Amino acid sequence: RLREILLSPETGDLDPRAEALLMAADRAHHVATKIRPALNRGKDVVCDRFVGSSLAYQGYGRDLGIDAVQALSTFATDGLVPDLVVLLVVSPDEAGTRLAAAGKRLEAAGAEFHARVADAYLMLAAHDPDRWVVVDGSGEIATIEARVLEAVEAKLPSGAGA
Amino acid sequence: RLREILLSPETGDLDPRAEALLMAADRAHHVATKIRPALNRGKDVVCDRFVGSSLAYQGYGRDLGIDAVQALSTFATDGLVPDLVVLLVVSPDEAGTRLAAAGKRLEAAGAEFHARVADAYLMLAAHDPDRWVVVDGSGEIATIEARVLEAVEAKLPSGAGA
Repeated sequence: RLREILLSPETGDLDPRAEALLMAADRAHHVATKIRPALNRGKDVVCDRFVGSSLAYQGYGRDLGIDAVQALSTFATDGLVPDLVVLLVVSPDEAGTRLAAAGKRLEAAGAEFHARVADAYLMLAAHDPDRWVVVDGSGEIATIEARVLEAVEAKLPSGAGA
Repeated sequence: RLREILLSPETGDLDPRAEALLMAADRAHHVATKIRPALNRGKDVVCDRFVGSSLAYQGYGRDLGIDAVQALSTFATDGLVPDLVVLLVVSPDEAGTRLAAAGKRLEAAGAEFHARVADAYLMLAAHDPDRWVVVDGSGEIATIEARVLEAVEAKLPSGAGA
């Protein structure tokens, strides 16, 4: 229901602080109901978007400031941090094509907004190179999958991600 | 739509952090779309529940800690603080009767939870006596209204709340 509100074009302009808090609420719910229980059962968890996305979209994209959004995220996850973040990078043209196909609310904000968010992701990766790995996201799915696997195997201790 | 999620009995047990963040999102939206615009037009704003309720319910009631919830609230309101908070106090019996009639989700949490929240409100009022005023909430609406008016007139500079 939160994602409905966040992603629906009918929501219109949401206050940036309300949007950041909704994102954090969604994150808190996801961590409490899915990720923590799986980790507690000894599972490895792979997650499509996590705190880095909040920092890039809300912290940089919406001008709320990285420290404020980091504080919300730390509260939301109760301090849970991923071992590895894989950032898939494509050209603005390719990104535009894929986003238009998805037709989501955040993606309607225009080229300038997306350029800032893309810069923010690259900056986050550059500031935390031990945790983040940047992977070429162009081409066919099988090609990208092979690149991601290679990056994961290079980064994670042998056997940890098997 | 947020209130639907927060207040619906079907939501079941919500993670306390997710609940606090949803409350803060609702607060941010309310401040950005209603309160700030009214203040900017020179209006006086009277609001049923504000940050004090988040501190009492989430900070004390849910054990998240007053500092963490204060930080969320400050982010949500962008630092907006009321000039005056009126706390209406009734006996636990009277409170139980009124809450049962309202049939809301938070009110289903039991007597012990409500006692903690009530203590939290009184503690907040005791720690900020210049801003908070405690008013007897028992009796008829007209009686309570007269008490509130008297308290407001005693606290606010002459003419400011007219």
